[in-house]
Amino acid sequence: MASAPSASGEDSLIARYFRPIATNPGAFDLGDDAAVLKADGFDIVVTTDAIVEAVHFLGSDPPDTVARKALRVNLSDLAAKGAAPAGFVLTLALRKADEAWLKPFAQALGEDAVQFGCPLLGGDTVSTPGPLMISITAFGRVPAGKMVHRSGAKPGDRIVVTGTIGDAALGLAILKGGNVADATANDVAARNLLTGRYRVPQPRNALARAVRDHASAAMDVSDGLAGDLAKLCGASGVSAVIDMESIPLSAAATDLVSRRVVGIETLIAGGDDYEVLCTIPEDRVEAFAEAARLAGVQVASIGMVVAGAAVPKFLDGQGREIALERLSYSHF
Amino acid sequence: MASAPSASGEDSLIARYFRPIATNPGAFDLGDDAAVLKADGFDIVVTTDAIVEAVHFLGSDPPDTVARKALRVNLSDLAAKGAAPAGFVLTLALRKADEAWLKPFAQALGEDAVQFGCPLLGGDTVSTPGPLMISITAFGRVPAGKMVHRSGAKPGDRIVVTGTIGDAALGLAILKGGNVADATANDVAARNLLTGRYRVPQPRNALARAVRDHASAAMDVSDGLAGDLAKLCGASGVSAVIDMESIPLSAAATDLVSRRVVGIETLIAGGDDYEVLCTIPEDRVEAFAEAARLAGVQVASIGMVVAGAAVPKFLDGQGREIALERLSYSHF
Repeated sequence: MASAPSASGEDSLIARYFRPIATNPGAFDLGDDAAVLKADGFDIVVTTDAIVEAVHFLGSDPPDTVARKALRVNLSDLAAKGAAPAGFVLTLALRKADEAWLKPFAQALGEDAVQFGCPLLGGDTVSTPGPLMISITAFGRVPAGKMVHRSGAKPGDRIVVTGTIGDAALGLAILKGGNVADATANDVAARNLLTGRYRVPQPRNALARAVRDHASAAMDVSDGLAGDLAKLCGASGVSAVIDMESIPLSAAATDLVSRRVVGIETLIAGGDDYEVLCTIPEDRVEAFAEAARLAGVQVASIGMVVAGAAVPKFLDGQGREIALERLSYSHF
Repeated sequence: MASAPSASGEDSLIARYFRPIATNPGAFDLGDDAAVLKADGFDIVVTTDAIVEAVHFLGSDPPDTVARKALRVNLSDLAAKGAAPAGFVLTLALRKADEAWLKPFAQALGEDAVQFGCPLLGGDTVSTPGPLMISITAFGRVPAGKMVHRSGAKPGDRIVVTGTIGDAALGLAILKGGNVADATANDVAARNLLTGRYRVPQPRNALARAVRDHASAAMDVSDGLAGDLAKLCGASGVSAVIDMESIPLSAAATDLVSRRVVGIETLIAGGDDYEVLCTIPEDRVEAFAEAARLAGVQVASIGMVVAGAAVPKFLDGQGREIALERLSYSHF
């Protein structure tokens, strides 16, 4: 409470850290109550995902990686829906206005906004006595009616996943300590790769156009491949058969599985992959693979959509079904 | 962790409480990763506001009022920008999935969505070890280029505010105990009115069209009339002179001021009014007043925009300037 009225702390915080990265004309320099998003004749795809300290990221994670994760988990949804990024709004719940944290946070957020062509349009900064929380609502554009749904998979479609599965779950296990941490104690490269995958997802926005052009259904893998595949199958009214040996693993994950530090069933039930899971009709498989190659995104065919309402089956190298105790991460 | 895989707790929570209120086709029954918002040739106005337990609402507030407040603080921004509500997405951070809390919360949210024509399009439910937090991003539609800004006020424009000012701040003071609570201890009607204004804002969406048609600048009053007016003036590059006696007060607030329980300067620096503050060119004043009357929204002229960069002046009945210690609420 100053005797001379001055700009509030919240306003100056926004001006200082976030105005410089809000360069889109629709953001109005963050100086208004709202932003304007131009649809330009497209459908606006809207997705919202929040990350909470000690739940989705660790209090010890560097602020720049927290910023990137907060935005990228949303970008990953846009990629899976076949949408081109159009912008985002940010809600930041902070215990205090800490420059040492906010400066690198805002800078990394601005860098990602540029890299992914997804400008900051607006936001709200609030105080909280509790954990840090970053809630982002992101927008994308698709031609009218062209958002890719979870619900279009048909028996006979190929099941495809991008990148590698399970690295982020291993990265979290390393950060938490325990047997995975012990098993990688002397392998700095593997530790860095796996913890990096946990902290900074690599959303597959480069593949969005190929997904929109060729996929019958798609979603992003955020709560575990097994559980997310079950959701996609449920939404489509189909089932699936997965060849466990086809599931793409990084060299670091392959090494840990072969040394029996973890089982592959742990990797496919772990969260935070942020890869795209999609189904491709057989006559589109070749065109999709070519589009993925041109986009520079690694894709792997891991199984087939089949008729029925059963939970997806996971088969080992001998065609035997593997029983899964847990499909995915759930908050409650 | 069940031996038979089942829908996760988070999914069943969403299905049970929020799917029934997500009736807009663009929400896809909350069964996809994203929603679709149709712009239909309009500009999409985007606003985001979060409310945090113990900061924006009290842990003792009933869940139905928390739901309404979370949505209405956003609806109020849309009203001030001249936008028609188009939908919203919700992020809910909960300590636990508590049916006794979630059921009335979701029901009230659904009722408000219908009342204000602002459908639930999607959301994210996360667990938090900290306070309850509800973050909403709301969308509105305006004809291209027609969002009303903070920045258009011109010297000579009339300054207008809707409803009454300061009731919510008094309501909060009553809920917290202290001299306002003591002074209203025997007046149940006043207590109910004032605490109701704190818990459940009355956003002026009925006035949005009139604001768009006639206002040169507008914003919603959420952090205190004095501070928000200073922001509007700053954005417009103007100053203002306010006649304190013209500021509209409820009978309950007038009574407390006349009994010297609170000063009016406290009321105009208090938050949570969620009224519309706008500037109307002199030749539009009559048409605006008529439109407001037809919309059933009370409006009061409280002063004039003047040239200059000074902080707005507040004059008493004798034309003497009143010094304000504090303009508004700030989180940091």
